[in-house]
Amino acid sequence: MPKDMTQETTIFTRRESEARSYCRGMDNMFVKAQGAEMFDQNGKRYIDFLAGCSSLNYGHNDPDMKSALVDHITNDGIAHGLDFHSDAKAAFLKAYEDHILTPRGMDYKIMMTGPTGTNAVEAAIKLARKVTGRRNVISFTNGFHGMTMGALSLTGNTDKRGGAGSGTLGDVTHMPFEGSLGENVDTLELIEAMLSNPSSGIDAPAAFIFEPIQGEGGLNAASDAWMQGVEKIARKHGALLIVDDIQAGCGRSGSFFSFEASGIKPDMITQAKSLSGFGLPFAALLIRPDHDIWKPAEHNGTFRGNTHAFVTARIAIEKFWSDKTFEKEIASKSVMLTTALQEVADLVPGASLKGRGMMQGVDVGSGDLAGAICARAYEHGLVIETSGANDEVIKFLAPLTISSELMREGFDILISATKEVVESHKIAAE
Amino acid sequence: MPKDMTQETTIFTRRESEARSYCRGMDNMFVKAQGAEMFDQNGKRYIDFLAGCSSLNYGHNDPDMKSALVDHITNDGIAHGLDFHSDAKAAFLKAYEDHILTPRGMDYKIMMTGPTGTNAVEAAIKLARKVTGRRNVISFTNGFHGMTMGALSLTGNTDKRGGAGSGTLGDVTHMPFEGSLGENVDTLELIEAMLSNPSSGIDAPAAFIFEPIQGEGGLNAASDAWMQGVEKIARKHGALLIVDDIQAGCGRSGSFFSFEASGIKPDMITQAKSLSGFGLPFAALLIRPDHDIWKPAEHNGTFRGNTHAFVTARIAIEKFWSDKTFEKEIASKSVMLTTALQEVADLVPGASLKGRGMMQGVDVGSGDLAGAICARAYEHGLVIETSGANDEVIKFLAPLTISSELMREGFDILISATKEVVESHKIAAE
Amino acid sequence: MPKDMTQETTIFTRRESEARSYCRGMDNMFVKAQGAEMFDQNGKRYIDFLAGCSSLNYGHNDPDMKSALVDHITNDGIAHGLDFHSDAKAAFLKAYEDHILTPRGMDYKIMMTGPTGTNAVEAAIKLARKVTGRRNVISFTNGFHGMTMGALSLTGNTDKRGGAGSGTLGDVTHMPFEGSLGENVDTLELIEAMLSNPSSGIDAPAAFIFEPIQGEGGLNAASDAWMQGVEKIARKHGALLIVDDIQAGCGRSGSFFSFEASGIKPDMITQAKSLSGFGLPFAALLIRPDHDIWKPAEHNGTFRGNTHAFVTARIAIEKFWSDKTFEKEIASKSVMLTTALQEVADLVPGASLKGRGMMQGVDVGSGDLAGAICARAYEHGLVIETSGANDEVIKFLAPLTISSELMREGFDILISATKEVVESHKIAAE
Amino acid sequence: MPKDMTQETTIFTRRESEARSYCRGMDNMFVKAQGAEMFDQNGKRYIDFLAGCSSLNYGHNDPDMKSALVDHITNDGIAHGLDFHSDAKAAFLKAYEDHILTPRGMDYKIMMTGPTGTNAVEAAIKLARKVTGRRNVISFTNGFHGMTMGALSLTGNTDKRGGAGSGTLGDVTHMPFEGSLGENVDTLELIEAMLSNPSSGIDAPAAFIFEPIQGEGGLNAASDAWMQGVEKIARKHGALLIVDDIQAGCGRSGSFFSFEASGIKPDMITQAKSLSGFGLPFAALLIRPDHDIWKPAEHNGTFRGNTHAFVTARIAIEKFWSDKTFEKEIASKSVMLTTALQEVADLVPGASLKGRGMMQGVDVGSGDLAGAICARAYEHGLVIETSGANDEVIKFLAPLTISSELMREGFDILISATKEVVESHKIAAE
Repeated sequence: MPKDMTQETTIFTRRESEARSYCRGMDNMFVKAQGAEMFDQNGKRYIDFLAGCSSLNYGHNDPDMKSALVDHITNDGIAHGLDFHSDAKAAFLKAYEDHILTPRGMDYKIMMTGPTGTNAVEAAIKLARKVTGRRNVISFTNGFHGMTMGALSLTGNTDKRGGAGSGTLGDVTHMPFEGSLGENVDTLELIEAMLSNPSSGIDAPAAFIFEPIQGEGGLNAASDAWMQGVEKIARKHGALLIVDDIQAGCGRSGSFFSFEASGIKPDMITQAKSLSGFGLPFAALLIRPDHDIWKPAEHNGTFRGNTHAFVTARIAIEKFWSDKTFEKEIASKSVMLTTALQEVADLVPGASLKGRGMMQGVDVGSGDLAGAICARAYEHGLVIETSGANDEVIKFLAPLTISSELMREGFDILISATKEVVESHKIAAE
Repeated sequence: MPKDMTQETTIFTRRESEARSYCRGMDNMFVKAQGAEMFDQNGKRYIDFLAGCSSLNYGHNDPDMKSALVDHITNDGIAHGLDFHSDAKAAFLKAYEDHILTPRGMDYKIMMTGPTGTNAVEAAIKLARKVTGRRNVISFTNGFHGMTMGALSLTGNTDKRGGAGSGTLGDVTHMPFEGSLGENVDTLELIEAMLSNPSSGIDAPAAFIFEPIQGEGGLNAASDAWMQGVEKIARKHGALLIVDDIQAGCGRSGSFFSFEASGIKPDMITQAKSLSGFGLPFAALLIRPDHDIWKPAEHNGTFRGNTHAFVTARIAIEKFWSDKTFEKEIASKSVMLTTALQEVADLVPGASLKGRGMMQGVDVGSGDLAGAICARAYEHGLVIETSGANDEVIKFLAPLTISSELMREGFDILISATKEVVESHKIAAE
Repeated sequence: MPKDMTQETTIFTRRESEARSYCRGMDNMFVKAQGAEMFDQNGKRYIDFLAGCSSLNYGHNDPDMKSALVDHITNDGIAHGLDFHSDAKAAFLKAYEDHILTPRGMDYKIMMTGPTGTNAVEAAIKLARKVTGRRNVISFTNGFHGMTMGALSLTGNTDKRGGAGSGTLGDVTHMPFEGSLGENVDTLELIEAMLSNPSSGIDAPAAFIFEPIQGEGGLNAASDAWMQGVEKIARKHGALLIVDDIQAGCGRSGSFFSFEASGIKPDMITQAKSLSGFGLPFAALLIRPDHDIWKPAEHNGTFRGNTHAFVTARIAIEKFWSDKTFEKEIASKSVMLTTALQEVADLVPGASLKGRGMMQGVDVGSGDLAGAICARAYEHGLVIETSGANDEVIKFLAPLTISSELMREGFDILISATKEVVESHKIAAE
Repeated sequence: MPKDMTQETTIFTRRESEARSYCRGMDNMFVKAQGAEMFDQNGKRYIDFLAGCSSLNYGHNDPDMKSALVDHITNDGIAHGLDFHSDAKAAFLKAYEDHILTPRGMDYKIMMTGPTGTNAVEAAIKLARKVTGRRNVISFTNGFHGMTMGALSLTGNTDKRGGAGSGTLGDVTHMPFEGSLGENVDTLELIEAMLSNPSSGIDAPAAFIFEPIQGEGGLNAASDAWMQGVEKIARKHGALLIVDDIQAGCGRSGSFFSFEASGIKPDMITQAKSLSGFGLPFAALLIRPDHDIWKPAEHNGTFRGNTHAFVTARIAIEKFWSDKTFEKEIASKSVMLTTALQEVADLVPGASLKGRGMMQGVDVGSGDLAGAICARAYEHGLVIETSGANDEVIKFLAPLTISSELMREGFDILISATKEVVESHKIAAE
């Protein structure tokens, strides 16, 4: 490690909070990124199989977005505009309407919440409670919805929940996600039985909220039937249906929304991560128009409506979602992905594939093993992370725009790393 | 109103949530902004006395920040980097250490929370509860801390609180801010009496949180003595002291932190709004090092550490805070501001000045009157807003970098508007 | 109905709250009661198959208790003694130790809570939270634990929960009781799966609380295996085990404690209802000595330690529990009971038996039907009530001391009533 | 101490929970009581200045109540009757109507809650939330309302609150009681200011609840003006007014209800302690008829409507409240009491009198001192206790029926004890 690097690293340990995480294991200093590649200060290249946790579905510094953003800034376009009308916002809304909503027959109002996923989730559950007059929200095991108190109450992870200290994480019932109780238990039957029993103690729900593919929870992909079942139960019990599509949305699953194939019609949809297209902070809540009963500024925020993000998000939509080309490309890559991941899985006894579309991974059965493989891969120039309740899943989240060649190159690294780690574990066990 | 404008406006009413607020009264479509001026699509100019609610303390599109940001983007600098080490982050941290912390003798760890003020507040109260093992947080009347459930529980405003529907806003005791019970009541005595009484029912607090100058609550500026008193009470009762400096910080009050003159030493400080310098989403929580007990990723977020904001924030710090020039400039403008606001106040029977530094306003006694004046001013080309529990305060929040000429021009508009409205109210009353 | 009765009834409708319940359907005015018989003001006799909801397990006005109580009062014995030492309390404690605890190898401290079941439950969950430092308590579907806010939060019934209005019923996770999800679902597996998943969102529990036989919830009797399973899960996850034995205890199930056969060793046991033996208000919480960390008066109450109840409770223990005679008698009657209830069940298509010991009933499948049968039985001189989430179970709770003859006579009435109602329903259906 | 006594005491330490309190300092075993005298097993007599904390306002074992109760029991009167109609209940209700409500022009429905004060309080706040649809209840510093979770959330005492462990005591705002912030602060103005400020963060209250004379909180007697002020604020803000008259009611203050002189008209009144007249568990909630919106059994309880208590309560009402004789007697004794207490106060530098009617005491400034005096008095044959946030008040709560001679005798003991303790403290200080 060159000397200047050490110096530079010092500032992080000296001044940045202990809450930092990714940079602990992957501690190079990155200075540049393009497409699916990142470069550190020494010019070392890394293939990016993480993509900002699915925030960079269109890759780093997409040239068209870059160009539009530079133009906008150069021309003194609005940088911060509260919720004022702006040309950038109008163009974004128009593009969203024309290329996302209308072709899918969807009718939603768009709420620009604070530009973080957790804020969109908070807005959603607040609105669901306002609309229904009920308090209880049903979320699911292994679900991850954010770190602010409202979103955290929905989140399953014990360590994350521990961050609230003695603060109350209430008003939520946690139910089992599809498959989380083993293959033989129909979680929908269980949920329906609990809600239909007037003596179950489960208060009538304001809403159900779930991720179609649980990103942090281990790439658990809900089946269409399960999503339809949740929708049916929600309707029966007068609850709203909220889909948290923050990690699985924007094409990650294969379609713009990750639940499209299921035909469900959520009352609200949260979006963030890749919504700006460029990795800029941006989040939105889609609301069925008749539920849009917010009073002006009843939920507000300084950075709601990030204008720079409007600029890049519009380009992203126009470039990737104005026809079916991109979706077909994702479909084709997803097949390649499954094949490549199976190669990895075959190296680890008992390993199995998880997820869907370009959001798949390998459950290697242990967090230690998954962590060791990712660490070894990083040494060889691949950025990749784990997921799951016990961090047992190696998660592939490369840009959707990654080339076949780079994807293959990345997998070669991953496969080598897996072999090395499995081999050394074997030796250690002997 | 030209025809195309109407068309463009349609997309907002058709697609944007009813939660939108500023754009209702000030409904032009803005396309460009520079310094303290904004321009709509027809080229009409507006003087900006709002500055993104103090998010644009250095004006719109500062040329140096603009240039640095364009360079960063053009060179494929990191746009989204989770919490990875990056050159941009290192440079920001170094500048913050060198020009903000060290000269003030302050030693804090910096936590990059999600890039919104509410997220920094949530992180602060979570950490305070973890550190102390206590649950109760004391916040103050007219305080505003954000819209997510944890921050909203601290916020005083009834309408905002109503956004939570039937959700629980608990674990908080709301105490009276300085002056809120009239001049004769010493709120510190009251708070101390309640906390010292073992039968008051007020649970031992994990923390106190307050804004030195309440931005949304009506420009109520706490005296140094009051802030010192809160600190003393907090120490006595084993509670942490959190200063929410989101709106009053970054020079708005006259110094970088709005509490500097008081000599208090908060355990945590929240920053956002003007922290990026450019209006980009960015927030941080300063933590006394020994309280930085977060486990890795215990509070995380996709957009924590907005790299573009690091770039502009560094420039802002280096340009404005490397010596005392800027502070002196603010001091001088603040005097002018007081004079100018007094001219406005003199036009309204019973009106009085509020606030401190470049965060002052006129309490005209009624929200209707204040609203009417701001609306009239807007017609004449001035963007200005109200504040206060009943929106009764006309709030001046222009960029700190505004020229004397532009400031005067804006005040000429405000004075005309005030005269017109006061006159028409008189006529209506007769 | 004689005239004076009408007059007397008036005072109830005029002055007693609408919360009154039993007296609505069974509206005679009772003036006298002996053993298993009650008499109204006109001398009409009723056989009592309700026994104060299991508060009169030894029948009304047991002559020995009566005599001891009259002596105590006549001799100016303590009537109200706060928690002072008294001869009556000492004698009760001694009897409880000698005849209840010691023979069963049980070692518990006895906490005299306020003399109501709900108060004992509140004390239990407060103590469990103190002992473990955890907040979450796990209770079960169809569980009933009382009406005060803490106990109500544990209670499953929606109507009862509705009594809290908008008050928070938090800090509880409701889990499915044995059999509540159908025969094919192993509820223990489900509970274990949820608790073992670190991302389930179910916070580590301070305690499990359950009724071995759910009295209000429909006479659902937990199997020994299920109780053992709950104990095992509780131990594994560091949670305390609380058995609410208020309705099923004091011999109702066949043994003094309803869980004796299972061999489980609860950390706490709540008792009330028949504990005084005479129907007097009395409740207690048994606490494993090492968990008895209460500070003096940390949970207190004016009527804790009802001295009159000590007098009768001692007699009850000495008379009925100093040897095995009574238990054998209950066992023999329980067999008769099952036979008799089967006769009832045979009259109703689809009906099935529920419960255990002298706490059995017939599930007739509908609350309307069960209610109609009980109402008809009442007309014929039998006091009997329904139970269950939908009031679908005809519940037998006669004094354990009832004679075979009276029991038979009561069943003759119940069978006639069932026939009449079933017949008239058939006619109505045709 | 005789040997057998030691043996008997053993059973308490061996088997009774550490929660026990009074019996620790006053550890004789009592076996008999009459009027204002208690006798231990060795025949030692104690004068009772505690009266079961105001539960024995008519003395121990009043001969008329005793006789009626013995008759009732002997004749197999109902002992436990759930909420069935009974002759005893009818007679009680009639007496209550005729001698309590009608003469005072009061119209209330009577709810028989579980027979403990805390249960009546729980019912009151549940109903207030149901009636108003609001959640927040305002209670007061030094207030004591019970130990179950709902009532405990209203209670001010830190030690008592600590009994809840980590359980949530929410939905309550604690406001300062009259005088608790010093003589110069008008607590009503403060409360009104907080509630009228739409940005105070105090949610619109469902109810105010207070004790006219705070029994546990230190004999703080609210003035008529203050009670009227609270009523006015409650009406203005749409909140219900609940008076907790559990300790100060039933004549203790001089009139049957302790607030009668103020002319306020509470929406609900809680009663317990001396309601039965005989020290038997009994509690009731008086409800303004139009607020009596309970559904049948929506708040229930096994021992609601303690029939033995109906018998004695009726006698108490007829004997003491059918004319003004008793009230006059209390008035006259109250004057004597003030004089006697002043004699005590004169012995302690800085001591002052507190309370009202037959509920007065001496604030001696320190809990240690008050405790030492009470302990010394006990040695000399007087049962008397402390009260207050720091146990600094020696509290006189003798039966209202105590003879002048016995009262004088008790005071002679108290005065001796005070002298001795003050003297020894002086010596210790030298």
